[in-house]
Amino acid sequence: MKIALDAMGGDQGPELLIDGALLALRRNKELSIILLGPENLLKERIAQCADSGNVAGRLLVEHAPETVTMEESPVEANPQKKDSTIMRGFDLVKNGQADAMVSAGHSGATMAAAIRKLGRLEGVSRPGIASLFPTRKTPVMLMDIGANVDCRPQHLFQFAVMASSCYALLQNKKNPRVGLLSIGSEPGKGNALIKETHELLRQSNLNFVGNVEGRDVYGGELDVVVCDGFVGNISLKISEGLAEAAMHMLKDEIMKSLQAKIGYLLIRKAFAAFRKRVDYAEYGGAPLLGINGIGIICHGSSSSVAICNAIGEAAKLVENKVNDSIVQSLRQYTTA
Amino acid sequence: MKIALDAMGGDQGPELLIDGALLALRRNKELSIILLGPENLLKERIAQCADSGNVAGRLLVEHAPETVTMEESPVEANPQKKDSTIMRGFDLVKNGQADAMVSAGHSGATMAAAIRKLGRLEGVSRPGIASLFPTRKTPVMLMDIGANVDCRPQHLFQFAVMASSCYALLQNKKNPRVGLLSIGSEPGKGNALIKETHELLRQSNLNFVGNVEGRDVYGGELDVVVCDGFVGNISLKISEGLAEAAMHMLKDEIMKSLQAKIGYLLIRKAFAAFRKRVDYAEYGGAPLLGINGIGIICHGSSSSVAICNAIGEAAKLVENKVNDSIVQSLRQYTTA
Repeated sequence: MKIALDAMGGDQGPELLIDGALLALRRNKELSIILLGPENLLKERIAQCADSGNVAGRLLVEHAPETVTMEESPVEANPQKKDSTIMRGFDLVKNGQADAMVSAGHSGATMAAAIRKLGRLEGVSRPGIASLFPTRKTPVMLMDIGANVDCRPQHLFQFAVMASSCYALLQNKKNPRVGLLSIGSEPGKGNALIKETHELLRQSNLNFVGNVEGRDVYGGELDVVVCDGFVGNISLKISEGLAEAAMHMLKDEIMKSLQAKIGYLLIRKAFAAFRKRVDYAEYGGAPLLGINGIGIICHGSSSSVAICNAIGEAAKLVENKVNDSIVQSLRQYTTA
Repeated sequence: MKIALDAMGGDQGPELLIDGALLALRRNKELSIILLGPENLLKERIAQCADSGNVAGRLLVEHAPETVTMEESPVEANPQKKDSTIMRGFDLVKNGQADAMVSAGHSGATMAAAIRKLGRLEGVSRPGIASLFPTRKTPVMLMDIGANVDCRPQHLFQFAVMASSCYALLQNKKNPRVGLLSIGSEPGKGNALIKETHELLRQSNLNFVGNVEGRDVYGGELDVVVCDGFVGNISLKISEGLAEAAMHMLKDEIMKSLQAKIGYLLIRKAFAAFRKRVDYAEYGGAPLLGINGIGIICHGSSSSVAICNAIGEAAKLVENKVNDSIVQSLRQYTTA
């Protein structure tokens, strides 16, 4: 099993990404990782890692001299930078030299490169991005979180099929419960897109529980929540923004009294455990579903543990042949 | 100044609503409140309130024998229940017997009754619901939070105009900063609706700061955020759900250690202050903007303080003639 890793993606430089790769190699002895980036730079950084020797044989470097920066347009970046870490990574997957590609870099450019190099899976109209979120119980998968801003009912329906297949494999759960994100649980509630999609889902043999509301997303009673990429991206970002603002506001209140400050010292381990639990970066990355290969995008501020988890997730999707499962499920609806 | 209050709305019975009314009457000596509900029931409950005597002359009752329940369809409820608290309340506003109507009942039926009884303001295509949210700095107003699920650019543009007028009056702030909710700050980002709306806002003389992302909503750098009712409702509900789930998860972690439990005892006043600060019910209600009158809807689980705040908010909108301000602003764009 070989996973390609964009060693120049992310906000925090290649050291953190190399650390993530080393963690993953130690955790899984069957794994090799191909780091993408400027060869000399990467070899130098690897040499600086004290314990890289133990796994050195399984840590490879593929020269990719260019990097797509976050400021670049996803449409223009890839044609202009054919030797970017992202483009070269999907070349490796295309040529069979790697089984999957993981990047914490420009997510739009990564998605575009995946489609360009690997193409879409048989039967898929629109590939999309799925992401796991923490809840009080089991994690929930939201799809699409930003690849497709204007969707038709058929697209949302396919997101439900693809995310169900992926969730079942990643979380070892048969027949994941699927909800359609709307503004009321009644079938008649929602906009025109939702009403039509509701019908398609109701007639399918997916485990469709019906329309769900925003407040159900974090309730833990759902496995997959389907929405278009516009709504999904706003849901994701509003959650991040609220969590951050709430933490600041809570700290503001704590800092107002000495007693609360002392209380905070006693409670801060619980706080750290909580933060870890809600930090969705810890859940690994977001799989690109619907492309003819395996690709995972990670948050730009991912920790090395998050990168390691994303690599593990990629390996799990390869091993369990998620794309075969998706194609089979979709074929069933195409012929029906 | 007379405010009509639906005394049967909300999840917690008329006592809490009467308490909210009494609070408001004590706070503002110029105010009268007309409670709507079954006359005998309300008079009995008022008599039970120990201190109602002091303000009794300003607490009136208007008989409304019917109540719209949360399970009813907003389309069917109003024609079937012409003597509901909601319908009778807007009758009072229409006939000039009340200056505004406040309800914590069925929000869809309240909006429908407002439009039916009072009609739309001159120049308004679609009335909508605006709501204030807490941030680390000044509150932000989101519009629309659920009245209009399928919108055209002109509708979103009018939401921006209406919410700006309302925010300026409620928060005493000239030229509120307006953001358009999208999935990236660049003008080209977003779906077709957003791209067209962006152009309309850019050409206006509103204080338009451009497209904003979900994470900016709680950042405190914006005064008004514009979106359609589908996105707005999901944003609101996802925030509620996340806040609730996060509180539960944090408590789970605290309960795991004795030390953290002791810390919690020391910190809980800060927690309570935090909860109060983020509880958007405390901010009063959500104004219905674009109707030819003043209406406020409150969360079903509003506290008596929240009801009192909503009544105060209604009075402020009446006093400052929010609708004159909206009509004037809209007229400027219609003639231009």
